[in-house]
Amino acid sequence: MHVVIVAGSSLAGELDAYLFNDADLVVAVDAGAEALTRVGLTPDVLIGDMDSISVATRLMMEARGVEVVLLETAKDETDTEAALRLAVDRGGEAVTVYGALGGPRLDHLMGNLMLLASPWLEGVGVRMVDEQHEAFLVGGDVIFGGREGDIVSLLPLTPEVAAVRTIGLRYPLNGETLFRAATRGVSNAMTGPEARVTHGEGVLLLIHYRGR
Amino acid sequence: MHVVIVAGSSLAGELDAYLFNDADLVVAVDAGAEALTRVGLTPDVLIGDMDSISVATRLMMEARGVEVVLLETAKDETDTEAALRLAVDRGGEAVTVYGALGGPRLDHLMGNLMLLASPWLEGVGVRMVDEQHEAFLVGGDVIFGGREGDIVSLLPLTPEVAAVRTIGLRYPLNGETLFRAATRGVSNAMTGPEARVTHGEGVLLLIHYRGR
Repeated sequence: MHVVIVAGSSLAGELDAYLFNDADLVVAVDAGAEALTRVGLTPDVLIGDMDSISVATRLMMEARGVEVVLLETAKDETDTEAALRLAVDRGGEAVTVYGALGGPRLDHLMGNLMLLASPWLEGVGVRMVDEQHEAFLVGGDVIFGGREGDIVSLLPLTPEVAAVRTIGLRYPLNGETLFRAATRGVSNAMTGPEARVTHGEGVLLLIHYRGR
Repeated sequence: MHVVIVAGSSLAGELDAYLFNDADLVVAVDAGAEALTRVGLTPDVLIGDMDSISVATRLMMEARGVEVVLLETAKDETDTEAALRLAVDRGGEAVTVYGALGGPRLDHLMGNLMLLASPWLEGVGVRMVDEQHEAFLVGGDVIFGGREGDIVSLLPLTPEVAAVRTIGLRYPLNGETLFRAATRGVSNAMTGPEARVTHGEGVLLLIHYRGR
């Protein structure tokens, strides 16, 4: 089951409706509903403390029968974390999140990327995506597509990530350890339309940059 | 000794010359030299692979006798990491970094924030600053200034950070453990012009957001 979440961060451009073609469940987080509405889509669920959605959009959601999950404003998790928990509770095996990497709040961005390492997300394939980036955990072994020259950065979220191997990247790793507090894994690049990264113990964040 | 580094990321606005009043050493990273030049300042050191600085600026730096440290383009660390190492090698006890939090490259931003946790930076006070944010490690105990209502987020870089206590924040922590893979520490706020955060074992990143 594929869940698509549209979080409330500013998106650089408009969403494309085709991004939702293979979604089994679409979840809007607060003002994320506005971004969906602009491309003529209605979410299945609207979740958030509703501090950024317009009254008009919220009323429209209710009129269309969208399930609304209202969160407290003062709470111990962000709306995006709550949306991810909902996605997992509803059986999401793959989750794509738009609108979690935008600004202007750097703390939200960092908090969202750190969420990827949540123990309760283990075994769930979560990708955070904006117009230029996709960010996801390698999770031991991943194959992904792109274009020759796309920048790929490997960022340990644990002090070390052991036995990192890459295929299809310009500066290959052949079983080396990557250290979190070093930028060695930054700015590798794809040599063709597909690349593979594997690793041993540790948590490894991959950021794939499609910008030029 | 206070070292100020101007890294090459896009800055939202112009630097202010007063930011450099108490700098003992000013280091420009690649195109960071352009941002300095625009406010009439010359760095003591220019470091980088020089892939983003203009030829004119580079020639001007050389004509002014600026020390130039040329790095390889294909290397195992980013220019910003190399600049931080230089700052420490030259005796920097406090280091302020501008231009490390800008876009568009999210991987650089993440890599830079992760650098704060480098073992070789232990005992060195490093702050990464842009127009709206400052980001630094709490390092066990920190007191910092701001304005009532400023957003303060506490983001563990280790799976847990023990015994977190806050004074001067709206949602106080009284010895609780913060977990990396949860967003509980996001979006606290200052209740006055000064706040204090202390903690036990773990690495805790603090992001102070001054935007409104």
